[in-house]
Amino acid sequence: MPDSNDAPIRRACPIPISDYPDVTLAHGGGGRLMRQLIEQMLVPSFDNPHLGRTHDGAVIAPEGERIAFTTDSFVVHPLQFPGGDVGKLSVYGTVNDLAMCGARPRYLSLGLIAEEGLAMETLWRIVESIRVAAKETGVEIVTGDTKVVDRGKGDGLYVNTSGVGFLPAGLEIGPARIEPGDVVIASGDLGRHGMGIMAVREGLEFETTIESDCAPLAAPIQDLLANGIPIHCLRDLTRGGLASATVELAQSAGRSIQLEERAIAVDRRVHAACELLGLDPLYVANEGRFVAIVPADSAERAVDVLRRHDVSADAAPIGTVLDDDRGLVTMRTEIGASRVVDLLSGEQLPRIC
Amino acid sequence: MPDSNDAPIRRACPIPISDYPDVTLAHGGGGRLMRQLIEQMLVPSFDNPHLGRTHDGAVIAPEGERIAFTTDSFVVHPLQFPGGDVGKLSVYGTVNDLAMCGARPRYLSLGLIAEEGLAMETLWRIVESIRVAAKETGVEIVTGDTKVVDRGKGDGLYVNTSGVGFLPAGLEIGPARIEPGDVVIASGDLGRHGMGIMAVREGLEFETTIESDCAPLAAPIQDLLANGIPIHCLRDLTRGGLASATVELAQSAGRSIQLEERAIAVDRRVHAACELLGLDPLYVANEGRFVAIVPADSAERAVDVLRRHDVSADAAPIGTVLDDDRGLVTMRTEIGASRVVDLLSGEQLPRIC
Repeated sequence: MPDSNDAPIRRACPIPISDYPDVTLAHGGGGRLMRQLIEQMLVPSFDNPHLGRTHDGAVIAPEGERIAFTTDSFVVHPLQFPGGDVGKLSVYGTVNDLAMCGARPRYLSLGLIAEEGLAMETLWRIVESIRVAAKETGVEIVTGDTKVVDRGKGDGLYVNTSGVGFLPAGLEIGPARIEPGDVVIASGDLGRHGMGIMAVREGLEFETTIESDCAPLAAPIQDLLANGIPIHCLRDLTRGGLASATVELAQSAGRSIQLEERAIAVDRRVHAACELLGLDPLYVANEGRFVAIVPADSAERAVDVLRRHDVSADAAPIGTVLDDDRGLVTMRTEIGASRVVDLLSGEQLPRIC
Repeated sequence: MPDSNDAPIRRACPIPISDYPDVTLAHGGGGRLMRQLIEQMLVPSFDNPHLGRTHDGAVIAPEGERIAFTTDSFVVHPLQFPGGDVGKLSVYGTVNDLAMCGARPRYLSLGLIAEEGLAMETLWRIVESIRVAAKETGVEIVTGDTKVVDRGKGDGLYVNTSGVGFLPAGLEIGPARIEPGDVVIASGDLGRHGMGIMAVREGLEFETTIESDCAPLAAPIQDLLANGIPIHCLRDLTRGGLASATVELAQSAGRSIQLEERAIAVDRRVHAACELLGLDPLYVANEGRFVAIVPADSAERAVDVLRRHDVSADAAPIGTVLDDDRGLVTMRTEIGASRVVDLLSGEQLPRIC
């Protein structure tokens, strides 16, 4: 991957910081300052023929028989965290939602809601992060919108990205296809995004920093499809974590799922942070993890394919779909007991994404 | 138009107000309360086969050789204003951006960023307004996202909508097509959205309330196309008003535009409110007005077509494109003088959309 996020090319902020150290209401007002922001910072960062047309929207050609369309807003606090920031998250998040439909992600929109007083340098760092993440994942930012709200009516920056991707007509991936006997594969260990952020917020210190797992997931999924794995369902494990994702899938599918606790990987530091804060890693948000539900006879091959990718190098089967239409999720614990996994009322962690 | 916004069907809020009078952080947390909000309020409101799939995104079929894709966030204050609210605005705004590409609007995404403490009843009224506006304009809300930010980090509700529409391959509408001799047609009078909101904010009273002009614009534009009008360029007159829109078009096209002050309609109350507040109606935001730039020999026919639609019943030519590549906008005033129209630094009115 060229130009990776680990070593982004740092270019100087094109808006003169001496003139505008902070974002002002005028930067969202439709006048000269907004045009400066768009023409000097945003359009050159995401340079492509669509954006250059200074039009109300982008006009693009379909590249598949079906279009996947998705949206996500990002209100994560703090804006920058170990392993990522709101910019990277907002690209990967929507790319991943498209990937979960089985689509090749292609085009993103970018909606910024900045708070008056946001440091121009912070905005620039986030725009750079979006640029690098888009390049890395092969998507183009083709249309955008910038609003500024008054001081005290935001929290620095909220970002919305919507995404368009393409897929062939025959490809149906979704809860309706889940069958008894299917295997649930997790793409890696759990809870690093949520606990990485909570550790910063709560000032927890470990021997090494917990970094968010925030990563793009389209490549391993496209590889599963290229290898002919008949994927039944995909779901990324964001807000609410593995527990909420599997409960939702089980309910939508009307099929029970049994998870094996001992197969589920959780980093030692994540475990420790969860214990300190009284949290269950099963419910903690991830931003680079998913489950794939596949027929039993394809499971081993699917795991092999996933393990070829860094982002899913630790993929493993963690459960099975039962021949039972109650739509429950149960967990067989390490000591062999069984407990029901349910949705929490809210989430343990506000504003994690 | 069935089920118009003037008489929306008021249904009772499906979330028990006695249990949850206000939106809480848990409503955005990925757990049971968020599912209740999505499954009881949002999905039934926007009922369609895509949303029902409870998936990470919608999968749709292309309905044209080209896809138009656009995004807009709405941070208007107050959330409800004479003639509309943030919900209606967020549907019309994105539908109008698609319309300005010459596309038939078809699908919207809906991203809600609610502030903890927002009255559930207010959220419900806005969701109802979105439902009615979507029905009226023939678009489907096919994918969505809901976030909640803590009290004091938002202002009730911010809404992002992104839109997908379709258009035929040959249709090119944009500043690059603007030619000397083209006629600039405005679809109606100016400034009612901005001044309707400012009148509320500033407590100005007139004999009758100034209502926002907020309206969907796809129908008159599709009608222009159906009547074979070779539209060169379209632009809706939102933030920054007519002045900013024409300056941007003139600069993008590298063609000067001359406007005729006497041809530009402004409601008497809007004039009065502008004078009281020291504003120029040329820069005030509209949400149901656009300019169409067409060849001179099609202008009369275009005006005739536009006048068949209520929303553009007062359409009139207001200027011409000059044979001059300076990209300036000038205004011939009622007394025959000429002045340059330029961008303001910011805008006169923050958070108007």
